[in-house]
Amino acid sequence: MEKTLLERLKEYSASDFYPLHMPGHKRQWGEGGTSGKGGGAGDGFPNPFSIDITEIDGFDNLHHAEGILRESMDRAAEIYGADESCYLVNGSSCGILSAICGCTARRGKILMSRNCHKSAYHGIYLNELDVEYIYPQIITELGIQGGILPEDVEKKLNENPDIQTVLIVSPTYDGMVSDVRRISEVVHRHGGVLLVDEAHGAHFPFGKEGEFPVSALDEGADVVIQSLHKTLPSLTQTAILHMRKKFLGTERMERIKRYLSIYQSSSPSYLFMASMESCIRYMDGEGREALSRLYERLEGFRDGCRELTGIQVPGKEWIGRYGVYDMDLSKILMFPGGLRRSGVWLGDWLREKHHLELEMSAPQYGLALTSLMDGEEGFRRLLNGLKELEQLDVLTGEAKDEMFYEKAVRSLCHPEAVCRIWEAMEADCEIRPLKECTGEISAEFVYLYPPGIPYLVPGERIADEMILFLSGCQRMGLSIQGMQDLNGFQLKIWKNKG
Amino acid sequence: MEKTLLERLKEYSASDFYPLHMPGHKRQWGEGGTSGKGGGAGDGFPNPFSIDITEIDGFDNLHHAEGILRESMDRAAEIYGADESCYLVNGSSCGILSAICGCTARRGKILMSRNCHKSAYHGIYLNELDVEYIYPQIITELGIQGGILPEDVEKKLNENPDIQTVLIVSPTYDGMVSDVRRISEVVHRHGGVLLVDEAHGAHFPFGKEGEFPVSALDEGADVVIQSLHKTLPSLTQTAILHMRKKFLGTERMERIKRYLSIYQSSSPSYLFMASMESCIRYMDGEGREALSRLYERLEGFRDGCRELTGIQVPGKEWIGRYGVYDMDLSKILMFPGGLRRSGVWLGDWLREKHHLELEMSAPQYGLALTSLMDGEEGFRRLLNGLKELEQLDVLTGEAKDEMFYEKAVRSLCHPEAVCRIWEAMEADCEIRPLKECTGEISAEFVYLYPPGIPYLVPGERIADEMILFLSGCQRMGLSIQGMQDLNGFQLKIWKNKG
Repeated sequence: MEKTLLERLKEYSASDFYPLHMPGHKRQWGEGGTSGKGGGAGDGFPNPFSIDITEIDGFDNLHHAEGILRESMDRAAEIYGADESCYLVNGSSCGILSAICGCTARRGKILMSRNCHKSAYHGIYLNELDVEYIYPQIITELGIQGGILPEDVEKKLNENPDIQTVLIVSPTYDGMVSDVRRISEVVHRHGGVLLVDEAHGAHFPFGKEGEFPVSALDEGADVVIQSLHKTLPSLTQTAILHMRKKFLGTERMERIKRYLSIYQSSSPSYLFMASMESCIRYMDGEGREALSRLYERLEGFRDGCRELTGIQVPGKEWIGRYGVYDMDLSKILMFPGGLRRSGVWLGDWLREKHHLELEMSAPQYGLALTSLMDGEEGFRRLLNGLKELEQLDVLTGEAKDEMFYEKAVRSLCHPEAVCRIWEAMEADCEIRPLKECTGEISAEFVYLYPPGIPYLVPGERIADEMILFLSGCQRMGLSIQGMQDLNGFQLKIWKNKG
Repeated sequence: MEKTLLERLKEYSASDFYPLHMPGHKRQWGEGGTSGKGGGAGDGFPNPFSIDITEIDGFDNLHHAEGILRESMDRAAEIYGADESCYLVNGSSCGILSAICGCTARRGKILMSRNCHKSAYHGIYLNELDVEYIYPQIITELGIQGGILPEDVEKKLNENPDIQTVLIVSPTYDGMVSDVRRISEVVHRHGGVLLVDEAHGAHFPFGKEGEFPVSALDEGADVVIQSLHKTLPSLTQTAILHMRKKFLGTERMERIKRYLSIYQSSSPSYLFMASMESCIRYMDGEGREALSRLYERLEGFRDGCRELTGIQVPGKEWIGRYGVYDMDLSKILMFPGGLRRSGVWLGDWLREKHHLELEMSAPQYGLALTSLMDGEEGFRRLLNGLKELEQLDVLTGEAKDEMFYEKAVRSLCHPEAVCRIWEAMEADCEIRPLKECTGEISAEFVYLYPPGIPYLVPGERIADEMILFLSGCQRMGLSIQGMQDLNGFQLKIWKNKG
């Protein structure tokens, strides 16, 4: 059996080859002593440095892979069933930028779901694109986004026959999956290509049927971007981009790769690359069983949740409604509305009382992200926490208001896009307190982080309910980002334009 | 004393906080056993995962730093004497892209030294810039590049009064430093700002007077980008961007930071950030002494090299000539011309016989990169290797020809730039064997890697001597990159344009 990248790196590290080249730490930093050599102790670092090398003889070059990295990525493509797969050392972000820039002409046009991650908006800004939005369905009972309807995609493509590139996010941050098969059929019928931000679904390709949703790559998407670190055991900032040649064609594939070499460091981390390879190899083997065990644990957990009366944990009952084609149950949404408490309060309480740190606290719910690395302990502690919470007398009025208020507002919100993002970002601007911005055109993005999906995009008109919503989020202590002056709660707007 | 980021991370890792959030490995991957929890063994990975977290409570957010990362970068800025310093998790590449895009208007203009790294050319491509080049001086005796002359910068700025942004690389990959003080004075007098790619000089700020060159940041540059991993003990892909406000102004600084948030992952690696902080703290303390010890070792090594007769190791004798204002002696250049051998042969021989891996082998010389992590052993082994080589009977004619031929050609080469890079890259193209390309306009970059400086840029006219040079490099087995069809040695050219 051929050696893994990791094995090669460790072997090289153990050999007597002496590095007279980069990196400067020379594979010794962090050993905890000087050991008769040059530098210092390295703060007692656990030693990732010992395998952190550069593009020396025999170790290939990510940006022009012809050797062991080429083989490694080819093996990955085979596992995933892609025509080509590219390791990303700058996160899904750089994959999304590259997919957008590679598949659109400058000052061209794109159709995109409005709930995309900010990196998609960055791609639009960089390539100065016109954008048409598809709005996801809203699950009104929960106040969260559902799926994208294929008929909405079709309608937009009929109205905009010049659009050749469509980008959607599936699953959403909350785990809602759209009908990618039907959407891709629509897109291909219109002569376009479909890009899917599957950042939160990197585990999909390794699940057994019926356990986790099918990956967009197997549903007809042409470019699929997955964050390996988000749901699989790989280091933060690692991701992968898959391409299918049939509709994409060689030229688009080459262009995407050109942008990948632009948007990624020319000194990619070997530690990251070893982590990615190791992760994918594991997932292609034992990982599949581990994912099944996760699914069983999730089922057990949800069984346990049936006893809860004040906290709602949504499950497969939403499939088939609000554009939800499938759901990723590894994302546990907890709505404590029955306890008249907000998701923010829930998250704080779980952290303080049970030392459980959630992925996200939203006004009306908390989100726990689980993975195959979660054993019984995590589920047990979470369930016990929720049960204990239900026994407490925590009722107050205030929190409840916040919660329902957000639910109502968010479901209403389809901002009016007045001009191109680029145009608004480069326009002559002024800074104004948010509460005085009704009817004005925003010149910047406003995000809640997480998840990093823009609530407000440059070029969109600011409505009263947005101001109310953002003010509510601020009161709840949520992390609002993008605003020019966050402390003063001031926004950058297009001067004399509103 | 306040805790370091690393200490906080380790403490958090050791606490009983259970992660119900990203990343998916949950800080357990790599422990070598299942330990009663979820997943697998992790390939016996040394465990960087145990401190690899995401933006949870108390750990700030690189893209909107307000907490411990803000403090950490502020401390760094203070150490460096910058008005603001930004950690980069996507290498110097993203810093250079951001500096260029942040300081130029789209379809604007820039003055740049022709020996910049490819990432600078990527910035020009992305912002569709017009570029005027300053050509570095050529040290004709060695056939390598020297420094940039301030008078050349002045002349270009007089000829192009619309240029407000100047970018140079100093030190070069070979360690040649330009007179940044005089260049920055010229640029500021013309109302512009100076960006310096100091990727290879990250150790400069920590050297004692007279040992290593002064950093561009202390010489008046407005933006300085340094690779922490190249010459200091930090993980590969880590870098830092420094800004000075005086000439840059708030608006340019904000624009640069906006681009940094675009060109970097929205999931930056905490491992990287801890590595950067740890590196800078070390350098600000013990590291300074370690750098002095390096300097002493370098002096000892160069003393030893005086015995060599067939291998030339250039030193401070070049200062003051060919635009060389200062030299970074931690880069050891070895010219084996007196042995009638090429740098490539030297590199191969050192690797095979002495297990010494060089940073780069060029046709006429080899380059050894040293750092404060190099103890006596490395220098001793290298010197012994060189001495042994001189004893061998390795004379042949062929290699000598290659070597001198390159020297002659490279020194002549000032390609004619016919159009904008962007224009040539988006033009209607054809693929043609390189040997039939005389007089044609290239539609792609051609690099030697390392160092990754474009030998040929899209929009430049292909001269006979370039074809000869590249063919020679190919025969020597050097890594040529960027060509459409490397195996067929075919180039993408602008159709019907030459």
